[in-house]
Order: sequence, then structure tokens, then C-alpha cells
Amino acid sequence: SGLVHVKNPHLDSMEEDVLYHLDLGTKTHNLPAMFGDIKFVCVGGSPNRMRAFAQFMHRELGLAGDGEDVADICAGSDRYAMYRAGPHGMGIPSISIMLHELIKLLHHAKCRDVTIIRIGTSGGLGIKAGSVVITDTAVDSSFQPRFEQVVLDDVVVRSTELDKDLAEELLACSRDIPDFPALIGHTMCTYDFYEGQGRLDGALCSFSSEKKLEYLRRAYDAGVRNIEMESTAFAALCGLCGLKGESCRFHFL
Amino acid sequence: SGLVHVKNPHLDSMEEDVLYHLDLGTKTHNLPAMFGDIKFVCVGGSPNRMRAFAQFMHRELGLAGDGEDVADICAGSDRYAMYRAGPHGMGIPSISIMLHELIKLLHHAKCRDVTIIRIGTSGGLGIKAGSVVITDTAVDSSFQPRFEQVVLDDVVVRSTELDKDLAEELLACSRDIPDFPALIGHTMCTYDFYEGQGRLDGALCSFSSEKKLEYLRRAYDAGVRNIEMESTAFAALCGLCGLKGESCRFHFL
Repeated sequence: SGLVHVKNPHLDSMEEDVLYHLDLGTKTHNLPAMFGDIKFVCVGGSPNRMRAFAQFMHRELGLAGDGEDVADICAGSDRYAMYRAGPHGMGIPSISIMLHELIKLLHHAKCRDVTIIRIGTSGGLGIKAGSVVITDTAVDSSFQPRFEQVVLDDVVVRSTELDKDLAEELLACSRDIPDFPALIGHTMCTYDFYEGQGRLDGALCSFSSEKKLEYLRRAYDAGVRNIEMESTAFAALCGLCGLKGESCRFHFL
Repeated sequence: SGLVHVKNPHLDSMEEDVLYHLDLGTKTHNLPAMFGDIKFVCVGGSPNRMRAFAQFMHRELGLAGDGEDVADICAGSDRYAMYRAGPHGMGIPSISIMLHELIKLLHHAKCRDVTIIRIGTSGGLGIKAGSVVITDTAVDSSFQPRFEQVVLDDVVVRSTELDKDLAEELLACSRDIPDFPALIGHTMCTYDFYEGQGRLDGALCSFSSEKKLEYLRRAYDAGVRNIEMESTAFAALCGLCGLKGESCRFHFL
């Protein structure tokens, strides 16, 4: 049916579902009317960048108005025909909160055939500056395609495959644009920016420059082409809820 | 000496240290002049709340001006005598990035005897609404006083004790204020707001209401009085870098 599905038997018996962090609810808002036509969701980490992206899309799509009121989306006072963009902060816990509530929003709004694309920047690995990495599989810090989710005090292991066809489609799009280097590869997701990604300039650093390089070389050999902090949770949640998901990250250093 | 210490031998040999996410650097800013007198740092998750808190402190301390330009702190165009406040987003990865850079900032600025207090809200456990929980020890989802940090692909276990004297001092302060219920207890830190904290209203939920209550009861019996998403990483980093740290969270539901 193409509907977004949630996997929570408790939701049906709830009188009201408040999407706390989005400032929306099933009693206070008519979610199908507001969001039912959504086919594409683009999410990114930085509020300023996402605002600029939403304004850019507003112009590209030739929508009415100047797009300046995009910041009010979660107050329900603003509406787009096809694209909406929202920042999700940095890291797995932050994107997870947003995705739980976004997926419930799409479910309550009875959206169908939704594609969700995570856009932003990341650290590239052995690729040239200015490249965009389209993720085929998100991997953890041991290069495994898995996301370990703690449920109460149990650890549940989830798959982190993303939509291969969508990745190929996005790669084909990139080839239509001159000087737009893009590639498909694995994306490594860490819980930490400094010690977790081999950076030598954190407040703490217990490894040598050689150990760092040896680790990054092993990551490259395992197929990793960029490193960021959200992809495994993003891939796991999209996969479980039947959303076509993809992550595209720009490597600018 | 009371100085804030970093544990990273690489920093000494770097020509410049750029604190990426704070938009500050050792070459572009005179950090000792800008921040050298800092004794207290208060951090919280929500930008709006932290802005309101900074404005409140500005008035309480009787500083010049109306405190309206507080948002510019990280651009270096604004200065406070004793307090600064910064939002750190939600979750361990987000607060870790901020703390690495904040600790380096305090180190470069040669600050001494710095106390850092994490303020905000949390979910209370078996305590009355309106209470503030002052954390003695941060624990993980298995109620253990530890933080597992992935360093490259190794897992390092770190202690999560906070400053007991500071906790008692803050509790004593709370007693001077009428109708200000406060208590000292353990704080549980999770990586996830929905499945990790026993919420029944996420997009995914695989446990029953009974299993949730049984888990929360075990947490209470282990001394947990509130649940949030940053305390173990906060406690571990403060402890390793010689910062007196404390977490105070308001339980409003």
C-alpha cells in the first residue's frame, strides 16, 4: 500500500499522540490535511543549512511566496507541496528522537511511498574534496553493517542496509550535472567526533598518529568512504518502517 | 594549580587549534583575555532555554546592558564576568563534541578552579513533579556507573562519579529556597528517548507496559531517580579533565 508503518501496538490505544519534539499532535493538528501529500523528506543536522536548503527548494520548485517563513514548519503554520526540511542536531540520539516522531507523523498523516534523504557533510576517506558519498550501507566503528539499539536493558541488533535502487538513481542524477563528483560507498557512523573518528585534536587523545592512520586504512579497505554520526540509526529506522531511505554527504575538506 | 587539563599530547605540537563547533581558535582569538576569568560554566540542551537562562543570570548578577546579545557568545563579540551558557543539543555525541571543545577552550584560556553545571530537564522516577535531581553518580542502562567510549575500534570504560561535595553544596543551597524540592540520586543516561527509556509511544515499541514498569522499578531500586541522555559522557569527561562537574535536572511531569 506504500503507507508508512509504525511497529508499536500501543499507539492504537492512545487517545492522543503528542509528537513532543515537533510540537505537533493528533488532537491539536489535522495531520493528514497538513502533511498527507508528502513524498520526499529531506533532513540534515544544521538548522541554518536546512533553512537555506528549504529556501533553495522553495525557489527551485517555483512555489508562491519568498520561502522566508520556513522556520515555522513545526508550528504548523507553514506548508510545502512536496519538500519539507528539518534539522535533527548531531548524533544518533538526536536524530533518533526526530525520526521516531517524523515516522509517526507520516503514519498519522497517511502518507504513501515516502522517500527520505539525509543530506549534509561528512569526513571523506580517500576521496577527493568536493565529492558526494551516496551510502549503500551504513557500518559501525568495527565496519559491520549493524546498529545496536538498547531497548530497556536489552541490546537488539538491527540491519543498516539502505535502498540500493535509490542510491543508483541518485548516482545517475549526479552524472547529469557537470563537475559533480559522486560515488556510492559505505558510510561509517560513530558516537563521537574526536576519539571515535581518529581525530588528534580533542581534549582527550590516547592514540598515535600511526594508530589513527592504520585504523582509517582498515576502514577504507572495508569499503568505508566517509564518516559521520547518524547513518546506522537512520538506516535501521527507515528499514524497519518501510521508508525508502538514503544518505548523501558532501566531503568538503 | 586548579588549571583545566587536557589529555592529548598532540595539542602541544599543533600550530593552531580551531574549536570547530564553537567558531573560535587559538590564532584568531585571544582566549585567555576573552575567557581566562571564567569560574562557572552552565550548559544545557535547548538553545531557547539557555538563552533565557543567560539573560536571567545577566539580570541576577546586575551586569551592564540588557543581556539581549547573548546569542553571539561563540562569535567572540560578547562577554560575561562570571557566567556563560551554551546549548549542546540532545544526546551523548552532541554534548561530547561541545565538551571536547569547551575543555580545550578553558585550557587555552588558562582558567583555574572551574565548576561546570549541566542544567535542564529530565524524566523523574518515583519522585514528585517539580523536584530537582542533583546527580551523585551517572549510570548506564544497566545501572552501572560507567561510560563506554569507543576509541577508534576499542571500547574504553570510564568512571562516571560526579563531585560529591558539590552535590551536597547544591543541595544545601536548595534548602534555603522555600518550596524547592531537591534530592541527590543516581541519574540514568540512555542513547535513546523512546525504546531506551521505556516509552510506549515511539514509532517502534517491542515491549509491554508490564515489562516497562518492571524495568523502571529495577532502576529505582538501583538508586536511579531520573533519566536523561547526556550524564555519563558529561561525568566521564569532567572527571578525566579535572573539572568539578554536577548535573541538576528539573522533573516537571
